[in-house]
Amino acid sequence: MTYTLILLRHGESEWNAKNLFTGWVDVELNEKGWGEAVRGGELLKAEGYLPDVVHTSLLRRAIMTANLALDAADRHWIPVKRNWRLNERHYGDLQGKNKAETLEQFGEEQFMTWRRSYDVPPPEISADNQYSQEGDPRYAGEPTPATECLKDVLERALPYWESGVVPDLKAGKTVLVAAHGNSLRAIIKHLDGIADDDIVGVNVPTGIPLVYELDEETLAPVKAGGTYLDADAAAAAIQAVANQGKK
Amino acid sequence: MTYTLILLRHGESEWNAKNLFTGWVDVELNEKGWGEAVRGGELLKAEGYLPDVVHTSLLRRAIMTANLALDAADRHWIPVKRNWRLNERHYGDLQGKNKAETLEQFGEEQFMTWRRSYDVPPPEISADNQYSQEGDPRYAGEPTPATECLKDVLERALPYWESGVVPDLKAGKTVLVAAHGNSLRAIIKHLDGIADDDIVGVNVPTGIPLVYELDEETLAPVKAGGTYLDADAAAAAIQAVANQGKK
Repeated sequence: MTYTLILLRHGESEWNAKNLFTGWVDVELNEKGWGEAVRGGELLKAEGYLPDVVHTSLLRRAIMTANLALDAADRHWIPVKRNWRLNERHYGDLQGKNKAETLEQFGEEQFMTWRRSYDVPPPEISADNQYSQEGDPRYAGEPTPATECLKDVLERALPYWESGVVPDLKAGKTVLVAAHGNSLRAIIKHLDGIADDDIVGVNVPTGIPLVYELDEETLAPVKAGGTYLDADAAAAAIQAVANQGKK
Repeated sequence: MTYTLILLRHGESEWNAKNLFTGWVDVELNEKGWGEAVRGGELLKAEGYLPDVVHTSLLRRAIMTANLALDAADRHWIPVKRNWRLNERHYGDLQGKNKAETLEQFGEEQFMTWRRSYDVPPPEISADNQYSQEGDPRYAGEPTPATECLKDVLERALPYWESGVVPDLKAGKTVLVAAHGNSLRAIIKHLDGIADDDIVGVNVPTGIPLVYELDEETLAPVKAGGTYLDADAAAAAIQAVANQGKK
């Protein structure tokens, strides 16, 4: 027997077009992102992957993605669990800043280090940055970060993986995790045992459910990397990201 | 000190325009219903009523109403609880049937008895009614009904009120219940001590949050009937329903 885990990355948000660093800023999905979420749910339904429980971050782009996908899959009624530990990587003081301007200000080497290194975080978010989560009631009393590298994301996401997600898997439930590029990378790195230097090269396409069947004893993936429900669309999306990097 | 309870009835669904008995049939909100839900959330935000937890039925028109209202109120991230005991009244074998045709078939007296009596349920849903919840996984193992009068709705809703909602109130949380005309009537009858013969005359307008402040000792409403966040709109909607009845 295996356990079934489904990972779903939220679609395009209103800040994609604006080219701003988002991180924990709680922006809305845009119209394209809504469509991606609905299509993700339609894929789940068509392929017969029916979640019994959903875990989301505390950010609306992941929450709305889960809401829309589950409605499209006729699974809107399942139990819902949310935790900040599934949030996107905190982008520190870069949150809300324009990417092109940041590149110009700090130079390409520093810029790419913040974006692509495993363990170098951007500067901590400053007290006067309007996108600080200071005073936000959803994080009250939680040990939330002021900036994060991908390594930090792993270290705060995996405790929730263990305490929140694994018990649902072990109860035999089909689990949907609706989250973000970097919190999903954290889970994938853990499951597939990917090296620190390689994980930043793993890109999860938006809106395409990624299904892992996990060994019931070890929770190791039966197939490394899992299976995208729309393999052709996923391959095209991954190739597109790879091509971006070459420009 | 008082506890704060907010009741929200879902807006118009796709079957309103079709004039069909809905009950437990899981129809979508229509565009007007979406707008009502968003406006309900905007009222919550404007008036500073910020839910800490939401309870919904298992039907998508209440679930989507909660999702949209909470997103509009910036409270999309709060914990979510769902239970079939908050579902709309089960309309038995009338589910899916046209109201005008049912009136013609059974006559006005029988028709009005099913619609407006406190304790006379319609015929039980038949095995070949495509809108039976038989085999629906969301109700697996639950003692769900085959038809209901309003009295039946009370009897199955109040156990969840006591075991699900009251503990959250007593923990000091502002509680949102997003549900249906008749499951909300059940709660209102219980809170305001309304007589059996009078409760069917209580009409909760759609999409307008109804706030109850409850005494912390007795859970009795500080103000009978609570307070609608948009009192003028609520009064107009209630009058419109009363006028319908006079035609």
